[in-house]
Amino acid sequence: MSQLPGIEGAKQLAAYTAVDKHILPHHKIIGIGSGSTVPYVVERIMQQGTELNKGRTFIPTGFQSKELIIEARLNLGDVDQYLTIDVTIDGADEVDAQLNCIKGGGACHLREKVLAEAAKSFIIVADYRKNGKYLGENFAHGVPIEVVPFAYAKVLQNLRSVLGSPNASLRMAKAKAGPVVTDNANFVIDAPFSRDLIKDPSSLLTKIKLLTGVVEVGLFCNIAQAAYFGNQDGSVTIKRVEGAKVIEESIAAS
Amino acid sequence: MSQLPGIEGAKQLAAYTAVDKHILPHHKIIGIGSGSTVPYVVERIMQQGTELNKGRTFIPTGFQSKELIIEARLNLGDVDQYLTIDVTIDGADEVDAQLNCIKGGGACHLREKVLAEAAKSFIIVADYRKNGKYLGENFAHGVPIEVVPFAYAKVLQNLRSVLGSPNASLRMAKAKAGPVVTDNANFVIDAPFSRDLIKDPSSLLTKIKLLTGVVEVGLFCNIAQAAYFGNQDGSVTIKRVEGAKVIEESIAAS
Repeated sequence: MSQLPGIEGAKQLAAYTAVDKHILPHHKIIGIGSGSTVPYVVERIMQQGTELNKGRTFIPTGFQSKELIIEARLNLGDVDQYLTIDVTIDGADEVDAQLNCIKGGGACHLREKVLAEAAKSFIIVADYRKNGKYLGENFAHGVPIEVVPFAYAKVLQNLRSVLGSPNASLRMAKAKAGPVVTDNANFVIDAPFSRDLIKDPSSLLTKIKLLTGVVEVGLFCNIAQAAYFGNQDGSVTIKRVEGAKVIEESIAAS
Repeated sequence: MSQLPGIEGAKQLAAYTAVDKHILPHHKIIGIGSGSTVPYVVERIMQQGTELNKGRTFIPTGFQSKELIIEARLNLGDVDQYLTIDVTIDGADEVDAQLNCIKGGGACHLREKVLAEAAKSFIIVADYRKNGKYLGENFAHGVPIEVVPFAYAKVLQNLRSVLGSPNASLRMAKAKAGPVVTDNANFVIDAPFSRDLIKDPSSLLTKIKLLTGVVEVGLFCNIAQAAYFGNQDGSVTIKRVEGAKVIEESIAAS
């Protein structure tokens, strides 16, 4: 199905398959996530036809997805207006066997979480490198944590000395001096945790979020209903929640 | 001790008594809170003498206390630089029998909480109207909740339909159009809770803070070491933590 080589092909495959399975004609309010796989989501939605898309509204998780929606001449909506979304499709930095995710490499995880929780179905798309058994296995940068600038030093101290992330650090910008500033005008701390501390991500999420000054934590626990991973051989690995279990299946290369 | 009549006199009394008891010559890093009682705190600190104050640094919780510090020509510090504060003195909207507080009438509760938690002693000063048995008894506006603008509608929905505050509402500004914007560029929701829901404020705090989009909650639980309330008759009621108990005593009018 994908015409692109390598990682880009894998991302495109995952995105196309997820759109085909989850964005159905009766879906009218659709959340569009952030990251490098999401342009392929919008690409595939466009292929569903102008007529169908005229009757839909698309809600972005940040500047990047807003631009994608505008460029594609799709109807742009606001989460204030649509508190319930039919489907949100988004990328992830890492997904574990239970469909818990680390998100926030792009520093949009607060808005992403709002749209993920507002959605009846929250679907992850990514390439095979993000498909893991446990969090922190491949994504070593740590858990992205959005913090209020005023409180960042105190949050850093608490992460290092109370929550056990001695290498927690403020994320520095690359195209401006000083720290990364999020779309919500906050800072981001990246906090790596040992496998022992991150093995129960829900509990870690609660501990971090309860720190004064923390706005949102890039751990998404028990939100995703399915994840699509494009593989190098042109196949797609699908993990989906069925009852209390996560079922894994594969679609062979076409 | 107070030269002012009525409520202002009660605030001044509380502030003066708290400064006399808690801001000692060896205290070098001092947190200055927000609200209508705090100007009297700074007034009394000034009376301790220029020589003593030269060696001190004062950390503000927001614009108002920063201006107070600057006007008094005291040394202004930043919480990034001083992660541990000797004493923070601050006001409160309501204090219960266990020294849990509602704060945030002035929309500075995030910065106030950072300075409260960073302090070796956190001391409340207020007039007698703030001295209550349980939270919500007198302060009917509800719990002030700082939220990211992007997520406010979803937080409102969750407060109303999940956490049981049907009258939760966005705080509107009085000297500008639209909502109040905090010193951190966020919005504020005021969420009234029934006595049954607020009777365990720590548990309510956790539930609210865990909502996606909530930056900080104006419930301060198990942080204050003492509270000073100025009374109309010129006496001061003191509640202070001693071991696991809160002791109440009174200083007669002088």
